[in-house]
Amino acid sequence: MVEAARRGGQSPRRLIQTRSGARGRQNILHGVEARRLADDPFSRSQRALNEGVSASYPPAAGIPELKAETSRFAKLFLDVSVRAEGCIPTVGSLNGSFLTFLVARSLHADRDAVLFIDPGFPVHRQQARVLGLEARGVDIADCRGSALEAALEEQCAGGQVAALLYSNPNNPTWMCLDERELQVVARVARRHDILLIEDLAYFAMDFRTELGRPGMPPFQPTAAHYTDEFVILISSSKAFSYAGQRVGMGVVSDALFARHFPNLAHHFPFTRFGDALVLGALYAASAGVTHSAQWGLAALLRAANDGEFDFPSYVKAYGVRASAMKTLFVSNGFHVVYDTDIDRPVGDGFYFTISWPGLSGRQLVAELLRYGISAISLEGTGARRTEGIRACVSLVHDDQLPDLRVRLEQFAAEHEVAPQK
Amino acid sequence: MVEAARRGGQSPRRLIQTRSGARGRQNILHGVEARRLADDPFSRSQRALNEGVSASYPPAAGIPELKAETSRFAKLFLDVSVRAEGCIPTVGSLNGSFLTFLVARSLHADRDAVLFIDPGFPVHRQQARVLGLEARGVDIADCRGSALEAALEEQCAGGQVAALLYSNPNNPTWMCLDERELQVVARVARRHDILLIEDLAYFAMDFRTELGRPGMPPFQPTAAHYTDEFVILISSSKAFSYAGQRVGMGVVSDALFARHFPNLAHHFPFTRFGDALVLGALYAASAGVTHSAQWGLAALLRAANDGEFDFPSYVKAYGVRASAMKTLFVSNGFHVVYDTDIDRPVGDGFYFTISWPGLSGRQLVAELLRYGISAISLEGTGARRTEGIRACVSLVHDDQLPDLRVRLEQFAAEHEVAPQK
Repeated sequence: MVEAARRGGQSPRRLIQTRSGARGRQNILHGVEARRLADDPFSRSQRALNEGVSASYPPAAGIPELKAETSRFAKLFLDVSVRAEGCIPTVGSLNGSFLTFLVARSLHADRDAVLFIDPGFPVHRQQARVLGLEARGVDIADCRGSALEAALEEQCAGGQVAALLYSNPNNPTWMCLDERELQVVARVARRHDILLIEDLAYFAMDFRTELGRPGMPPFQPTAAHYTDEFVILISSSKAFSYAGQRVGMGVVSDALFARHFPNLAHHFPFTRFGDALVLGALYAASAGVTHSAQWGLAALLRAANDGEFDFPSYVKAYGVRASAMKTLFVSNGFHVVYDTDIDRPVGDGFYFTISWPGLSGRQLVAELLRYGISAISLEGTGARRTEGIRACVSLVHDDQLPDLRVRLEQFAAEHEVAPQK
Repeated sequence: MVEAARRGGQSPRRLIQTRSGARGRQNILHGVEARRLADDPFSRSQRALNEGVSASYPPAAGIPELKAETSRFAKLFLDVSVRAEGCIPTVGSLNGSFLTFLVARSLHADRDAVLFIDPGFPVHRQQARVLGLEARGVDIADCRGSALEAALEEQCAGGQVAALLYSNPNNPTWMCLDERELQVVARVARRHDILLIEDLAYFAMDFRTELGRPGMPPFQPTAAHYTDEFVILISSSKAFSYAGQRVGMGVVSDALFARHFPNLAHHFPFTRFGDALVLGALYAASAGVTHSAQWGLAALLRAANDGEFDFPSYVKAYGVRASAMKTLFVSNGFHVVYDTDIDRPVGDGFYFTISWPGLSGRQLVAELLRYGISAISLEGTGARRTEGIRACVSLVHDDQLPDLRVRLEQFAAEHEVAPQK
């Protein structure tokens, strides 16, 4: 729909995009500049280019500097110990899930399903489909807390599930799995020998808790505290506003990296998980990740690890803006679809979900587009509540909020349900 | 083997690598600097970083500047007309074949094989295997000229072949398909409705012909002159010494881009080839290609298109070095495995193939490693002549040639067959 709006210009006004993408680099860059970091992450990749990295293939497993800083980052911000060997750059963290699915397909004979904790990022489901994997899901809103185990068990009982993926915080609802739920996830994965993939695309962005202080609790919650076999995907796109460079990190636990899966031999020249992922999947798919971008991310991580770059302070702007946007929607008669996180209000972060009484998600997307507001429907996210849409905070500028208010007021005035003012 | 040598230090001497990789950036960079290009390709990506591209997702289909320059490049150096829409950046051209295989798998029901013209790049076969495709091959040395059609037909007759891939020049033998053979390839692909993938990783590097003058014949030979449905993969790694940045170009013909394949709907939310490739496969696998690297490649292509950057003049050094290396091998009793290109000697380029009487490829790799010379065996390339190894010219420096001579003389003296001096 957004593409159509861009091309066809269906809206006479400048489009307010609440769909996908990352912004806010200005914040981070200015912050970094103000601090005059000796090794400014944004110039580090430029220096690497001066040093000639563009001419030589990057190591498939990643440059040692990036691997080491990722290992430090896992310890300092997650309290998880992983050897540098298992820290693998991918072409964005989306590439991390894609490659992990590719390996997961071959770990065991006769397993061809991926289980998602929904609602989720539609592209993850698309990845499964492209690779010929069945996509299953449980809607987390229906089974919070102790109910989660039974819901996951129901999907895993048949033995077809090869991998389990969830995002925490969750895109699009911004609900967060709590410690008890993370224990359940780890337990179920262990019980059925399912590959556990934890997508931390929105690292330290549950702003209800002060995360992101290196080496200090509270740490980013993770199921890695409850199992020794996991893949964690860390995105640089949101936390570091580095989406353009397509470099994320896959963090593979030591035990999983070293584990041999005899069935891998059917599709890879390796049976060790780490080798199949790096030398098999990643090398075959792209021969590694852009060399200069690896240097850039290494510098970002180093600055974060050394406490020189307080990345949560920059991304907090998303939470503030989300709160303002939600208020505008709700005060004009919209409802927040997924509004509760077990026993407290869902946090304000990168995404939220809204609906208009009587309209399906697709209808609401189309209607909002007429007012120059773009979004995606919850249909496609695996959500059972398909009456809503996902709003993305990152593409709305603070200076667009007054305009958003005017358009939402107009929308409300022209639609049946009276605004709850 | 090289990895082992690096790690284990089996050789007391500095390793002479004749295996994989790209070098020579110094040549190109110095040349470009000398010409003081207004838009120096190597600084263009740095400027893009200054302009903030690292913060925003690249367009999945590529930045317009890169697409437009690629379309121009296809016209000026291949004499092939393709709309910019079909010019798609990939994470290196290896990613281009991977993504094309991913789509090829779903074009038709019940087709699960890729046909290679061998010997070939082992990673292409690995890609097929990882994606669950059967890898078939014909050894080009066995069926040059008019014999090629029957050989291809034999493999295609059963109807399982979804895609046909070949490299021209060919890695590892450096044999080149001639115009008649390219016609055959195009004809067979059309006859069986097989996706034709032409890998031009070594663009304009058949130095027997003066290729690479923009808009002037002779043009790089291509099967695209004989069919209107093709994918051409153009690598920046060798011709532009840009291997580190992982950005290549997939060039999809207009007819193929626009063609609908109903069977695609099983795995993609699109039935049009171009959409399945870009919005389906490429977006799902990595959400596009590193933003700043796209700007860098766009600048390289623009400079080549405008005649400001005579890239063939820089890569010709490979041909000169290949000739010198071959002479050293042959004068010490080695044989060139694939030495004839239909009716003339195979050209000197990026790779050549050598053997030692009585040793298999694997044995020769192991033996040479004892002398500090690394290579890969022809086993794995799909070659029927498996007694040899592939030597890669790019990782040997000119100043290593005297050392290579000494080591080869020592090898010859310590092995049974007397050198043919």
